[in-house]
Amino acid sequence: MAKKKMILDLDTGVDDALALAYALATPDADLIGVIASYGNTLVDTAAQNTLNLLELLGATDVPVYTGYAHAAGSGPFETMQISMDIHGTNGVGNVELATAQRTVESTDGEDAADFLIDAAYTYRDNLIVVPTGPLTNLAAAMKKDPAIGDLIGNITLMGGALTVPGNVTPYTEANINQDPAAADYVFKHGRHVVMVGLDVTLQTLLTKEETKAWRKLNTAKGTAFADIFDYYIDAYYNLDINKNGAALHDPLAVGVAVDPNLVTLLPINLMVSTEDGRTIGDPARALEPIKTNFAAVEVDTPFYVERFMNYMVNILK
Amino acid sequence: MAKKKMILDLDTGVDDALALAYALATPDADLIGVIASYGNTLVDTAAQNTLNLLELLGATDVPVYTGYAHAAGSGPFETMQISMDIHGTNGVGNVELATAQRTVESTDGEDAADFLIDAAYTYRDNLIVVPTGPLTNLAAAMKKDPAIGDLIGNITLMGGALTVPGNVTPYTEANINQDPAAADYVFKHGRHVVMVGLDVTLQTLLTKEETKAWRKLNTAKGTAFADIFDYYIDAYYNLDINKNGAALHDPLAVGVAVDPNLVTLLPINLMVSTEDGRTIGDPARALEPIKTNFAAVEVDTPFYVERFMNYMVNILK
Repeated sequence: MAKKKMILDLDTGVDDALALAYALATPDADLIGVIASYGNTLVDTAAQNTLNLLELLGATDVPVYTGYAHAAGSGPFETMQISMDIHGTNGVGNVELATAQRTVESTDGEDAADFLIDAAYTYRDNLIVVPTGPLTNLAAAMKKDPAIGDLIGNITLMGGALTVPGNVTPYTEANINQDPAAADYVFKHGRHVVMVGLDVTLQTLLTKEETKAWRKLNTAKGTAFADIFDYYIDAYYNLDINKNGAALHDPLAVGVAVDPNLVTLLPINLMVSTEDGRTIGDPARALEPIKTNFAAVEVDTPFYVERFMNYMVNILK
Repeated sequence: MAKKKMILDLDTGVDDALALAYALATPDADLIGVIASYGNTLVDTAAQNTLNLLELLGATDVPVYTGYAHAAGSGPFETMQISMDIHGTNGVGNVELATAQRTVESTDGEDAADFLIDAAYTYRDNLIVVPTGPLTNLAAAMKKDPAIGDLIGNITLMGGALTVPGNVTPYTEANINQDPAAADYVFKHGRHVVMVGLDVTLQTLLTKEETKAWRKLNTAKGTAFADIFDYYIDAYYNLDINKNGAALHDPLAVGVAVDPNLVTLLPINLMVSTEDGRTIGDPARALEPIKTNFAAVEVDTPFYVERFMNYMVNILK
């Protein structure tokens, strides 16, 4: 069997930065491209952060595309104050990264969609798409070429909240909330869509104990990643989100994408209410014998955090 | 190991009638008492229906207590029109049952609570409590004697909706909606509380094919139960709740109470929002290593329906 190919769709973002590192570090898939999205920050900032981080990590061969700047049919996107409080005004914990030598492949969202479509035809079953922001880009690609919903072997997204309250309102999680219609479309048109939501990501916390290990590596990247994530841990503490650490939202999605055994998956066909952004079982598809959606409802936290740390220490050396 | 003892708490109700029959039929537990509740109908009607059904089924030795008439702190309860549409104005599909010879043990809700408390001390681990209506009576007993939350071996309730929309609003299910505070209390103070909600009960449908088998038994009880459930199937059809059959809500809770292997249980500490009656993971207890609550999220429908039919045909002979 050919090695899996992964495309990330990131609104980079502190935990997106960790997801990027994890995707480069995992031996279970090749990262073949990154699409930038809006959410934790503006799309152009997310693209630039991604380029800078890839260069810091020595992965200058991974193409980056700038995706859509906002949800289809919505006005211009502005970063929420809470997002800036958590991710810093520059998206990466206000850490000044060296500006990458190269630029994005394209700043046209449609080119990002075409990149996804081409990859779907080229890699089919072996393609894993991991969106950790709004599902705007993926839905746009799936609408442009409806055949790819059945081609892409695995869509594993960070987003949603099925069995726990949301983090924007009691009903909705931030990524889904940015573009509920896109998320609904992806759930209903993907062949195999795994939701890694707050149900599990809030159970994988990282503390300064762990970032200290990166700092001790005495490398530029180790220090940068420790600084970036410490900002996030402090924000979680100061905003009273969690006093015991900060959640590894996005890197968990990458982990599950290549190894679903990290979590317990509930087979359940989902929908997203465009009224309140809730991710919930779709009554219209409840009795269908075939489930195309799977929600992560339990996670093996100690095993995951150990693997995460092994990968991170390896790539930050 | 001593045989399990079961107490039902029913707002009888069409599917409550089936739960009662199932509880008498199962070889895995002895039914030691029934508490009547409000919900599908008024509490006194539920008590009378229970007495009538027990007599019809030849189980005149099972004591019946009339529980509380409404939620603590609420005004008088009135049956909702939709409940009468589904269960008939008399609660049992407008079927005229012969009036029982005997009456309830007590019409004082506090006596019902004391019955629960006494049973908790007598049977402890071996006691199974199965509420299929609001949790008013059970919460009252647990508040009166907080020790019983740790004594009762197994509370398995029909109610709630974790991964699917509610049936009163998108957020709440009917039983929980009658008394959200009581439900919240039971989830937080029971040692082992299993939620059998719409997540699974909407997947166990019965049709007139099955009730025809009861009718063919040519017994008074077979005919009565077929008439009662056909009313419910017709209501599901006419109200466009489901055109393919009617849900076995309450008997599934009894089935799971004695055999949890019928479902997949997700260990998750739950809460009920008193604002909207939503059953959802409790963030305050999410990281506790010990889970006291378990939500049924998948069900082996063919196996359950076959067992249900075997039990029903046996007891209706």
